[in-house]
Amino acid sequence: MRISELSRVTGVPLPTVKYYLREGLLQPGTATAANQAEYGDEHVHRLRLVRALREVGDLGITEVRAVLEAAADERLSLHEVLGVAHHALGPRADPAPPAPDLARARDDVDRLLAGLGWRVSPAAPARRLLADALVALRRLGRDVPAEVFAPYAEAADRLAASELGGVARADDREDAVEQAVVGTVVFEAALGALRRLAQEHHSALRLSEAPPGAATDG
Amino acid sequence: MRISELSRVTGVPLPTVKYYLREGLLQPGTATAANQAEYGDEHVHRLRLVRALREVGDLGITEVRAVLEAAADERLSLHEVLGVAHHALGPRADPAPPAPDLARARDDVDRLLAGLGWRVSPAAPARRLLADALVALRRLGRDVPAEVFAPYAEAADRLAASELGGVARADDREDAVEQAVVGTVVFEAALGALRRLAQEHHSALRLSEAPPGAATDG
Repeated sequence: MRISELSRVTGVPLPTVKYYLREGLLQPGTATAANQAEYGDEHVHRLRLVRALREVGDLGITEVRAVLEAAADERLSLHEVLGVAHHALGPRADPAPPAPDLARARDDVDRLLAGLGWRVSPAAPARRLLADALVALRRLGRDVPAEVFAPYAEAADRLAASELGGVARADDREDAVEQAVVGTVVFEAALGALRRLAQEHHSALRLSEAPPGAATDG
Repeated sequence: MRISELSRVTGVPLPTVKYYLREGLLQPGTATAANQAEYGDEHVHRLRLVRALREVGDLGITEVRAVLEAAADERLSLHEVLGVAHHALGPRADPAPPAPDLARARDDVDRLLAGLGWRVSPAAPARRLLADALVALRRLGRDVPAEVFAPYAEAADRLAASELGGVARADDREDAVEQAVVGTVVFEAALGALRRLAQEHHSALRLSEAPPGAATDG
């Protein structure tokens, strides 16, 4: 198909398709004439993968490129590709020395993870996300240990075990890589959405009957 | 304390503190002279709340203001305040008619939630987040029903029940509101981080031993 058809089929605007081509996120088509190329199903699929990472996962162009390059690099194990995807999701390493309470929170998070027996790289960016969350709670006056996250860790552990089982059963490397990367990004968004919906439900059950301004007087 | 001290104590840069004052995110101090005001613990706390919503929750200024105004409005029930927080987390309503596959995914999500028996507003923005996630999976060729999210819904339900229990037990309205809002934002970030860490752990257990390029051949 022509590039205009590729844009129509995927719903990705033509200028965006051209931008992805220039940035190397989309592989070039087969040249059929000067200034004309033919695109196939693999381009449709790639475009949809890029859109999922950009829109659902909110990844930047640089991060999408890093993930796609890792996925294509067959010297990398699936574990390494997943690591690249996790790094792409951030946060970026902060060169500034952490404030004292953040340094303490990082130690607490490290101890929590060690206590869980999780095999996680010391450089995993999600460690800092978790420490940031802990610091935010503490700065608001909640004197909580890292163990406040234990029920979340338990839920995450159960979900991840099932997800990685699916990845390990995938038909081939390409399918496994995509399942791992898409699974990380798309199901994280889905889990966040479901938690808000479940909160609304439980809030409706518990809090909506209370008279205004007296919701917690009981 | 003076505004410079407020900045120092909270670690929020002075220009940012002044910006929040202008934008009404931070309540004015008590004027002590022309161009001078005194700030107290309530300002420290408010600044930390704003930072948590901005940095951990990634909310815009407009969204933070909406959440703070709802929290302060004692005519609103806690359930309504939580609804405002969820709306602030987005996504914004999309005025364009949805593509046919998105319309179908929304119906599927509505059916999933109805099947779960959750009391959730038809306008809840998280419905669309979930439909977007489902569409992303389907566009990548995974022919999945909305029930693919069922294990995530179960985990979310268990966590939300416990979270809302904590909110309902809070000492007063202000504490309950803050717990609900902060809980939504901060624990969502924490849950996402923990899921990535758990994935890395299960990936290390299952995938890292495989020889490069043959990770799923077994």
